[in-house]
Amino acid sequence: MEGKGKRASHIYRAAAEIMCEKGYEATSMNDIAEAAGLTKAGIYHYIRGKEDLLFEIMNYAMDAVDHGVVAPAREIEDAEQRLRVIVERHTRSVLEGVGALTIVLEETGALTPAHRRAITARKRAYFEFIRSTLRCLAAEGKLLPVDPTVATFSLLGMILWISRWYRRDGPIGAEQALRDYVEIGMSAVLRKTS
Amino acid sequence: MEGKGKRASHIYRAAAEIMCEKGYEATSMNDIAEAAGLTKAGIYHYIRGKEDLLFEIMNYAMDAVDHGVVAPAREIEDAEQRLRVIVERHTRSVLEGVGALTIVLEETGALTPAHRRAITARKRAYFEFIRSTLRCLAAEGKLLPVDPTVATFSLLGMILWISRWYRRDGPIGAEQALRDYVEIGMSAVLRKTS
Repeated sequence: MEGKGKRASHIYRAAAEIMCEKGYEATSMNDIAEAAGLTKAGIYHYIRGKEDLLFEIMNYAMDAVDHGVVAPAREIEDAEQRLRVIVERHTRSVLEGVGALTIVLEETGALTPAHRRAITARKRAYFEFIRSTLRCLAAEGKLLPVDPTVATFSLLGMILWISRWYRRDGPIGAEQALRDYVEIGMSAVLRKTS
Repeated sequence: MEGKGKRASHIYRAAAEIMCEKGYEATSMNDIAEAAGLTKAGIYHYIRGKEDLLFEIMNYAMDAVDHGVVAPAREIEDAEQRLRVIVERHTRSVLEGVGALTIVLEETGALTPAHRRAITARKRAYFEFIRSTLRCLAAEGKLLPVDPTVATFSLLGMILWISRWYRRDGPIGAEQALRDYVEIGMSAVLRKTS
């Protein structure tokens, strides 16, 4: 498994990009093999089939969220600082990572029921992590007078949407975009302090 | 054309919903006819084919934005009030409308090049309308110190994401969600006033 890590990561990214470009249904195993630079026989060494690959890609994307966002944020006791780390790290991962991975996470309709339940549970756990942070802020009187569920979806929509528009070779640098998103995200849900 | 309006609207909504459920590629004309309650011969009375239908659905969705959001907002001279009307009306249309129409708007990859250019131009015009409002706010010193492009995409991501999660039969009423989204959206991009 360890030896397969890097190659698997390469396949997941290439497969996610071709799935986004052509649409999941229209993407064949041949397309995926070609995008990953493997023969069709070669790709079956790594994956069993398209649905299985989709499930692995989604787990790979959720692993990145767990390790890169949740794990470091969980260490932070202060809710406002924790929220800042969540917004900053998640935004950075979408800005700097492969946008296609974020988009492919929405294809849960193409999973088998058992796989769909597993991915939905992982997404829900992340959602709950953000919402519980916002509930802490509400208890401290720092949250705007809004429903924490609506606020959580607002932040997630804002961040996940980056995958739809941001181009690393475009006019807006990643550092500026990151700074602005943190400013906008925090301002979106926190009460004004004069 | 006029007589076809209501029937067309029914077909667009039903088709958008089945396309979201099954994925555009996997949806057949038979599926669409069935969802719209028409025979396969009947549906060809209204539309020429799947790509053509997709293009018509997208124009229908953009017409709704133009009539329901842009036209009334354009009448408002004050930039802050204009932004509030944009956020409120667009959010309301996603909360109360057919979420599938919003999601289908992303399927531009499935359009012919000429159709894709036409839809992209309409989306861009809407984007520019919001961004120019944010630029007015920047000139008035009311915008957060952020790039108006990033702020525009933040607002759009927040609003368009509603189609992914909001259920009218769920625990959060449309009026509460609307109120919260307007609060969050305005707070996201405007400077604090003490």
